[in-house]
Amino acid sequence: MREFYLIEMARSMLKIEREDILVGVGEDDCAVVRVGDVNLVLTTDCLHEKTDFPAGIEAEEIGRLALAVNLSDLAGCGAKPLFFLYTITITDEIDDRTFERILKGMRDLADRYGVAIVGGDTDFGDELHISGFAIGVAERFVTQSGARVGDYVCITGSLGKAQLSLDQLLSGIDRNEIAYPEALFKPEPKVWEGIQIARYANAMTDISDSLAVSLNLIAEKSKVGIEIYEDLIPLDHLLSYVDYDKALELFLYAGGDYELVYTSRRCSHIKIGRVVEGRGVWLVRRDGSREKVEFRGYSHF
Amino acid sequence: MREFYLIEMARSMLKIEREDILVGVGEDDCAVVRVGDVNLVLTTDCLHEKTDFPAGIEAEEIGRLALAVNLSDLAGCGAKPLFFLYTITITDEIDDRTFERILKGMRDLADRYGVAIVGGDTDFGDELHISGFAIGVAERFVTQSGARVGDYVCITGSLGKAQLSLDQLLSGIDRNEIAYPEALFKPEPKVWEGIQIARYANAMTDISDSLAVSLNLIAEKSKVGIEIYEDLIPLDHLLSYVDYDKALELFLYAGGDYELVYTSRRCSHIKIGRVVEGRGVWLVRRDGSREKVEFRGYSHF
Repeated sequence: MREFYLIEMARSMLKIEREDILVGVGEDDCAVVRVGDVNLVLTTDCLHEKTDFPAGIEAEEIGRLALAVNLSDLAGCGAKPLFFLYTITITDEIDDRTFERILKGMRDLADRYGVAIVGGDTDFGDELHISGFAIGVAERFVTQSGARVGDYVCITGSLGKAQLSLDQLLSGIDRNEIAYPEALFKPEPKVWEGIQIARYANAMTDISDSLAVSLNLIAEKSKVGIEIYEDLIPLDHLLSYVDYDKALELFLYAGGDYELVYTSRRCSHIKIGRVVEGRGVWLVRRDGSREKVEFRGYSHF
Repeated sequence: MREFYLIEMARSMLKIEREDILVGVGEDDCAVVRVGDVNLVLTTDCLHEKTDFPAGIEAEEIGRLALAVNLSDLAGCGAKPLFFLYTITITDEIDDRTFERILKGMRDLADRYGVAIVGGDTDFGDELHISGFAIGVAERFVTQSGARVGDYVCITGSLGKAQLSLDQLLSGIDRNEIAYPEALFKPEPKVWEGIQIARYANAMTDISDSLAVSLNLIAEKSKVGIEIYEDLIPLDHLLSYVDYDKALELFLYAGGDYELVYTSRRCSHIKIGRVVEGRGVWLVRRDGSREKVEFRGYSHF
């Protein structure tokens, strides 16, 4: 994926050693910097009409999503979100009322999590585009690099719903008839869960591209191996719609679910595996055989 | 201008009263929030290929500009910049080498002002677009609303160079032959000046759209009048290229100069006027007549 190559290029070019930078550019979901006696957690994420907004999405859901992706990044570090800024590029098709509805969706989600939207910039262009920038604080923050051998691997909720619903939508099913419209159009960032989990997790990240990508990042950065066990994987929510192999594929490689994955001695959510000696991520089948979980995911529609 | 209407709509929709928000959305160049015992100054600004990048701009200058506009906003509040994050949308025409050069331009300017680039997001689309988010700190910050009757009105440098140069470029003159290529392609945000001025200014802002827009914002928000005096206005740098009326028009209404304007009992830069009783912004001609300075500017090319 060219995106990962460019991110790596940016990381190596922009890397800077400074006492007040605890987690720097490209190292994790968020940057963590020290200002005064506070750990500030910073993140940015942008959405584009063509790649990020499924057909039939409402204006309020667009604004909501632009904030939600950023809150999910903060949640992945265990930060409490405080402030949000955005830039929006609107097209000629977006009238004043639609613009207002986009902002309303953003504001309603902000209100739910005590986030103040303190800045914005509005411009005009050929494609609807929103960049968001979120600031949070964390006494204890959790990165992708702290996993320890012996930790459980846990996820905060079931996976694959968003991609399953998107596949249905793309096959022509109406948005009111797809399996999990909320998962696709109104995903809920796991803000409170992230703050709670940060108290005891050794590694954490949000699942934006796919579980496979998230686990590979944790394994690589923590210099450990990860095993997930087929018999622990919850697939029931998918099996009414697709066969077993497809459900497993969605579980491992689908994006867009806004859940968190973490490793810890303690698991308060869905336990799916363990951190082990070695390297890489492995699916342990019911018969005991091991298959490599690849570094891939659907990052966009 | 629809832009101002939408900004006002956003401001009224997103306005929120909270103890930790000292300057909120749409109120000024930047938001100012309190975290721990620090005033954090936050801003965001985005640039688009079609509206913001003059023909012939180099890749490094594009990256530089994306940071510079944000540093100029921070300077307008007197904040010391610390951190920067960006999102970039690149087109198929931007190869890896060009991407690298864009980042290099950004990094070099960041280095000059001690700014750490701590986050970024890279995506693909039909138009080159960069959104920037800058974070600074300020013990004493200055807004547009503090001007007091009796203050001098001062600017940190001469105005009109960028637009003059752009006009020349658009008329077909080569970028090496235009009057002030640096003003257009490599404007310098007045970071150190802003920090110094914040110690004694009552009101300040950067001049992004035009002096006229900046002064009208200060006058309106401070509930004062502003007079600028024709005989104090420096136009020599423009008069070799255009006639007097055009030079005055550029001085008042042209954008893109990255200077600061402030009001204070003390003026360490170019004094051009006074804060007076009343409302509105007025140009006082050499013969003593007064003309209204309108709320307008060139915000884009």
